[in-house]
Amino acid sequence: MPKIKSEEVGEFYQHYPKVAAVLTVNAGGKRNAMAAAWHSAISFKPPLYGVAVAPKRFTYQLILESKEFGINFVPFEAAELVASVGGSGGKEIDKFIKFDIAEEKSLKTSVPILKDAYAAYECKLVDNRTYGDHVWVVGEIVAVHFIDDVLTSKGTLDLDRLKPTLYLGAEFYMTTDRESVRLLDRNTYGRR
Amino acid sequence: MPKIKSEEVGEFYQHYPKVAAVLTVNAGGKRNAMAAAWHSAISFKPPLYGVAVAPKRFTYQLILESKEFGINFVPFEAAELVASVGGSGGKEIDKFIKFDIAEEKSLKTSVPILKDAYAAYECKLVDNRTYGDHVWVVGEIVAVHFIDDVLTSKGTLDLDRLKPTLYLGAEFYMTTDRESVRLLDRNTYGRR
Repeated sequence: MPKIKSEEVGEFYQHYPKVAAVLTVNAGGKRNAMAAAWHSAISFKPPLYGVAVAPKRFTYQLILESKEFGINFVPFEAAELVASVGGSGGKEIDKFIKFDIAEEKSLKTSVPILKDAYAAYECKLVDNRTYGDHVWVVGEIVAVHFIDDVLTSKGTLDLDRLKPTLYLGAEFYMTTDRESVRLLDRNTYGRR
Repeated sequence: MPKIKSEEVGEFYQHYPKVAAVLTVNAGGKRNAMAAAWHSAISFKPPLYGVAVAPKRFTYQLILESKEFGINFVPFEAAELVASVGGSGGKEIDKFIKFDIAEEKSLKTSVPILKDAYAAYECKLVDNRTYGDHVWVVGEIVAVHFIDDVLTSKGTLDLDRLKPTLYLGAEFYMTTDRESVRLLDRNTYGRR
């Protein structure tokens, strides 16, 4: 099929879907949660994780204050939680109360860990660097929380037991097709 | 379900699946393609895209030489292409020849655009910053290629017409469940 080639980038949703993350923070009792689609691991050793946050966000202020943040992943059954924290501001209201979000105890930081999360990372801020209209916030993962039952022996998600929440853009959410999983190993495909 | 809490981070595949990207580069005729899972948009204006690359990679050398890179997204039907370029080194062999990968003409750079890609970004290097064992390579998107038919009127992927390639970790690939798409709009869910 012919492609459109353009210098107009627009919303550039083409690289979606992205696993929806809930970014959490707590600075001396002021806490917040926001939805984040732009995030990624960026180093194995040490384990570093980055997330793009608009600098005007209340969450960003709290990250600068506390030097910590949490990255939480919730199952598709809890996608409404992501939409709730993503669709509201946290400066005037406490979203944890408004949306009745349950927390668990963190291990090495004071960041809120969502009870609904199947996995979460506690991060200590190591860098914050402005790129365009967002700040790339980088943290070292100092503790991991996960439900052991939803991972395979290789550490990947077991899609027979868990549906991750994916964000497609424009407020559309979705999940994976567990029937579609294929092993494409490098010994076979890298040497064709 | 009770969670495991650990300071041992390990491979941390919990934040997968990720859309599989093929990172392409061309420095004066030396070209390469590699699979990248750690990548994200990081700014709307200007449109910036980041990708984590290990500094020892041949691709990284070529990015530093050419100051350009391409980010390509291929449909699940072409997932083997991702596994092929991901499972082999490009210093000694030309992967485009070895794996018979078709290219299209780029618009604003000299990066290879994959004919199989439903969307691709041409990027000009704006920053490269070492974080742990990877370099966070940031480029400004100067041109976009996409098949118009696979996008909805809102610019998101039309999953009735396209299956994106997702990487689950540990050489497992998969795609989305098009039946699962839900609109969770902020007016409803942000104000509950």
